[in-house]
Amino acid sequence: MAGGYMGRVLRVDLSRKKVEEQKFNEETCRKFIGGSGLGAKILYDETNADTDPFSPENPLIFMAGPTANTQVPTSGRHAVVSRSPLTGIFGESDAGGTWGAKLKQAGLDGLIITGKAHSPTYLWVQDGKVEFRDASHLWGKDTYEIDPILKGETHKNATVAAIGPAGEKLVLLSGIVHDGSDARIAGRCGLGAVMGSKKLKAIVVQGSAKAPVAHPDDLAASVKELMPTILESSKTFGQLGTSGGVITHETMGNFPLQNWRLGRWEEGVKKISGPAMAESILVKRYACRQCPIACGREVKVDKGPYAGVDGAGPEYETMGTLGGMCLVDNLEAVAMANEICNRYGLDTISAGCVIAFAMECYENGLLTKKDTDGIDLTWGNHQALVEMVKKMGKKEGIGELLGKGVRRASQEIGGIAPEFALHVKGLELPAHDPRSYFGAALAFATSARGACHLSAWTMGFERGLTMPEVGADGRVTRWEVNGKAEFVAKCQYMMGMYDAMKYCKFIAFGGMKLSHCLKWFNQVTGWDMDLAEFFKTGERLLNLKRMINVGWGVSRKDDTLPPRSMTHKRTGPGLTDAEQHLPPLGRLLSDYYEYSGWNEWGIPRPEKLRELGL
Amino acid sequence: MAGGYMGRVLRVDLSRKKVEEQKFNEETCRKFIGGSGLGAKILYDETNADTDPFSPENPLIFMAGPTANTQVPTSGRHAVVSRSPLTGIFGESDAGGTWGAKLKQAGLDGLIITGKAHSPTYLWVQDGKVEFRDASHLWGKDTYEIDPILKGETHKNATVAAIGPAGEKLVLLSGIVHDGSDARIAGRCGLGAVMGSKKLKAIVVQGSAKAPVAHPDDLAASVKELMPTILESSKTFGQLGTSGGVITHETMGNFPLQNWRLGRWEEGVKKISGPAMAESILVKRYACRQCPIACGREVKVDKGPYAGVDGAGPEYETMGTLGGMCLVDNLEAVAMANEICNRYGLDTISAGCVIAFAMECYENGLLTKKDTDGIDLTWGNHQALVEMVKKMGKKEGIGELLGKGVRRASQEIGGIAPEFALHVKGLELPAHDPRSYFGAALAFATSARGACHLSAWTMGFERGLTMPEVGADGRVTRWEVNGKAEFVAKCQYMMGMYDAMKYCKFIAFGGMKLSHCLKWFNQVTGWDMDLAEFFKTGERLLNLKRMINVGWGVSRKDDTLPPRSMTHKRTGPGLTDAEQHLPPLGRLLSDYYEYSGWNEWGIPRPEKLRELGL
Repeated sequence: MAGGYMGRVLRVDLSRKKVEEQKFNEETCRKFIGGSGLGAKILYDETNADTDPFSPENPLIFMAGPTANTQVPTSGRHAVVSRSPLTGIFGESDAGGTWGAKLKQAGLDGLIITGKAHSPTYLWVQDGKVEFRDASHLWGKDTYEIDPILKGETHKNATVAAIGPAGEKLVLLSGIVHDGSDARIAGRCGLGAVMGSKKLKAIVVQGSAKAPVAHPDDLAASVKELMPTILESSKTFGQLGTSGGVITHETMGNFPLQNWRLGRWEEGVKKISGPAMAESILVKRYACRQCPIACGREVKVDKGPYAGVDGAGPEYETMGTLGGMCLVDNLEAVAMANEICNRYGLDTISAGCVIAFAMECYENGLLTKKDTDGIDLTWGNHQALVEMVKKMGKKEGIGELLGKGVRRASQEIGGIAPEFALHVKGLELPAHDPRSYFGAALAFATSARGACHLSAWTMGFERGLTMPEVGADGRVTRWEVNGKAEFVAKCQYMMGMYDAMKYCKFIAFGGMKLSHCLKWFNQVTGWDMDLAEFFKTGERLLNLKRMINVGWGVSRKDDTLPPRSMTHKRTGPGLTDAEQHLPPLGRLLSDYYEYSGWNEWGIPRPEKLRELGL
Repeated sequence: MAGGYMGRVLRVDLSRKKVEEQKFNEETCRKFIGGSGLGAKILYDETNADTDPFSPENPLIFMAGPTANTQVPTSGRHAVVSRSPLTGIFGESDAGGTWGAKLKQAGLDGLIITGKAHSPTYLWVQDGKVEFRDASHLWGKDTYEIDPILKGETHKNATVAAIGPAGEKLVLLSGIVHDGSDARIAGRCGLGAVMGSKKLKAIVVQGSAKAPVAHPDDLAASVKELMPTILESSKTFGQLGTSGGVITHETMGNFPLQNWRLGRWEEGVKKISGPAMAESILVKRYACRQCPIACGREVKVDKGPYAGVDGAGPEYETMGTLGGMCLVDNLEAVAMANEICNRYGLDTISAGCVIAFAMECYENGLLTKKDTDGIDLTWGNHQALVEMVKKMGKKEGIGELLGKGVRRASQEIGGIAPEFALHVKGLELPAHDPRSYFGAALAFATSARGACHLSAWTMGFERGLTMPEVGADGRVTRWEVNGKAEFVAKCQYMMGMYDAMKYCKFIAFGGMKLSHCLKWFNQVTGWDMDLAEFFKTGERLLNLKRMINVGWGVSRKDDTLPPRSMTHKRTGPGLTDAEQHLPPLGRLLSDYYEYSGWNEWGIPRPEKLRELGL
């Protein structure tokens, strides 16, 4: 194979303690790229309608991207793919940090984990070799605690992907945490619980291989030339981190408040915004491997009730869900809840959403103090927030119910509770409002993993960022319906490719166009992918994921939004009528299916699949 | 009590063979009127969350209207109310004919049937007395057969309400048939199965009481004065019957075709239209009691494969469902399928819909000849149509599955089948397209009994009929969104009142305004109800039915439309882009809840209930 992309994957069978190499040829790699693209291909081949998410047969797939461990800016991410136990459908989740690059340094592009260990185990992956090691002494420990222990037992420069106690206990909201207290978590879709079902506590990776690059000089020159632009364009974003967007999004009616009910919360968001964090608990910034933007926040709380917080700070999504959704404006409490999520291995998005859901149940008498072990689960109660996160992490008391996510919890509670449960296909909504961006509305309704802000990531382009290849010319407006479906589909193709190449989507904040990203990709792989092939490949990946989901029963009926997102305007002061819109999802979906070559039930037509080589 | 309205209802306990009188005082009557209004009040009082539709405790309520058996034009209808076994929620269905007026002649406004007979029973109600009679010899016989038998055993002028074999066998699509072969069926919501669960074959009614009228001279004068207008205005409608509308509705894209998929079917509908029937199998017209319009069709087929048809002919809805939905353009076959429905006691709307659903399953390989007992269930196969109706009536072979309605059948078939199942809250869509009339879209989504064309009946007003009191000034357009919710709500209040007063909605085709209907109502009752009270009462009834449904788990999540109605444009030739619209249900519902004083979950606010005296 040309260039740096080897398509080298190890298949690790925990039941039999066997490791086999599986090579993917160039044709397959070029068709499915890597990351969640090649991951989806593997999942499609290795599962069927009956594969239980917690069965040994369900593969847990870790995939880096073709440009991992090269100079390519923001290319340090990796994907985790499996059948989700939370949603029952295609699950993908990705993380930044250093783990993906380290995997490539160990000479590998991916790991396919199958089977189930007899007792708690961790994998020690060094320079392409895999060792099965006992993890009994780590079982029950949190992800921050075990990071130094594992480094001590392996290599001081190793990188750890691990589950916390939540994953061990199969909590459906649990994720996979990387890099210890500089946490980067593959949070969504409950894939930490899949890892827990395999009794796999951690995967520790170390290596010394250099990344092979087809055209190293061209790549170096290009990166050098563009670096000043990246640094300049991403300056503010890097300085304030993702939560720098909190105030802007709140002003636009995009920030989630009180389980998506409240209109504005100006005084509240000021206290949990990026600037507020920068002025108080921020200690330093940190970056994922090969990222010049450095949006990571390290925070520390020295005193007060939340003293002890020390590590990764809350992101925008976390501020939205643990903060805005629950109306908690106590930054230190949000930081503590965030840290508990990281330590126990919980997705902060789903965790915040399910707590807000529970608060609305409590408000309406569907949950009482008898259910909450005496906790007063009122809006804005920051102690309650922290307690709830703990209970979910420990699967204790009401935490057991809430850790199942809003869909299942609402069904178990019954009555009107399903009306408070905002999710798509079982995945809780992230911190962007489908009523605020019709592109997001359509994307949430159609994304493979359920309500996902990343698989189309239209919001930036719907408010001024340009990317001419998807039609984002700075004039795409939030509430326009005409042409929106085509725009969303193209964004999905592009972002699906970024998820396969493992670029960070924030590279757009660094002023980098699609053409830059594609050029670097070709310089690494030695390929000559043009824009047409790029988009066709993106469309292939989207259709592949769709076909996986179709096999698990997904059709048009599931491409929807929660009633609240379609029917209910926000209440309270602040948003004017002109700022209050409700997405006409029927029209958007109709246009989308037509553009996609899907039939009316949302299933790709045979001719479309043939066209895409599926 | 003033005037003619006695509020006199008999409570009939089939288990204990007991009859008690229950009087409703004037205040209650004025608050809930009669028909399905007072019926809803009784249902609300006598059921709870756990009342099984087939339990002896579920009351089956027959209610005439306050003007029954008077001179008031079109006032001969009656309502049947119960918890629906098909939908699990509020069930109401009404019928024309002579039974309601006869009940009033027997001195009664209604019957509340509870309990369960030990063996097949019929009730013989004469002049206010009820006799429990053995119906063993009638069990298994169809409704046309038993009509003369029962008259022979009781009184030659008696009127029969009966179930056919479908109701006996608890087929969920079964209705209650009145007047033998001049059939008028309370078809919707499966209330025939409730009657079957009580082992009640028929209720035969006869009486000699005159209808008391508060101001008989005024009433006589008014009716005399207006009769020429009614006759003139309803001339064409009366001549062609309800199926006179088939061609117009098809042209407008309102007529259901091929399970709501096909755009146009000009050649097909010509063969099953009102004029086609008038020129071929029509024998004579017939009218409900006190109706000058006479939209009923008596048809007869003498030869050919469908020889033997002799009685009530297919209505517009039946042409739409047994005809257009299944693409069957053989009028005699539709007439035969219609007659089988009447004889076995099946709702033609739901029956046609579930056969079309099955045809789509067959087209897509979800049902095969193995499932259909060898029947080739292809679109347009008129023999298959007739066979399917028989099988449902007999609960035989695949008829057992289909007789459960599209919601349950699609769940049992699984796979993609739910995408073919068009219903709201479990009730199959009638023959009007929510994409063609946005008023119908909102009405279908919010009607108490599920997808209902009668509870708002906006379509006439959305294409030119005027009724200034609901804002219908001839300029209400089908696809306008602004103001549509208020218009629909007002139509629902008005039509809910017609359902309580038991006017026929076709009185509007007779040129009669709301003011006429209200005047007659006051002349009979002696009340002084003004328009404000009329609409407030209509709103009360709507909210009462909503509260009944809320108790059975209905909320916003259920106020929706099938995906196909919201997302999918019709295909094939015919309809231009300008004629293809998709209802923006989110916006419509949001406006509707706001206008209604309901909260975002679609539940009436406490202050609204207080305002309405509920």
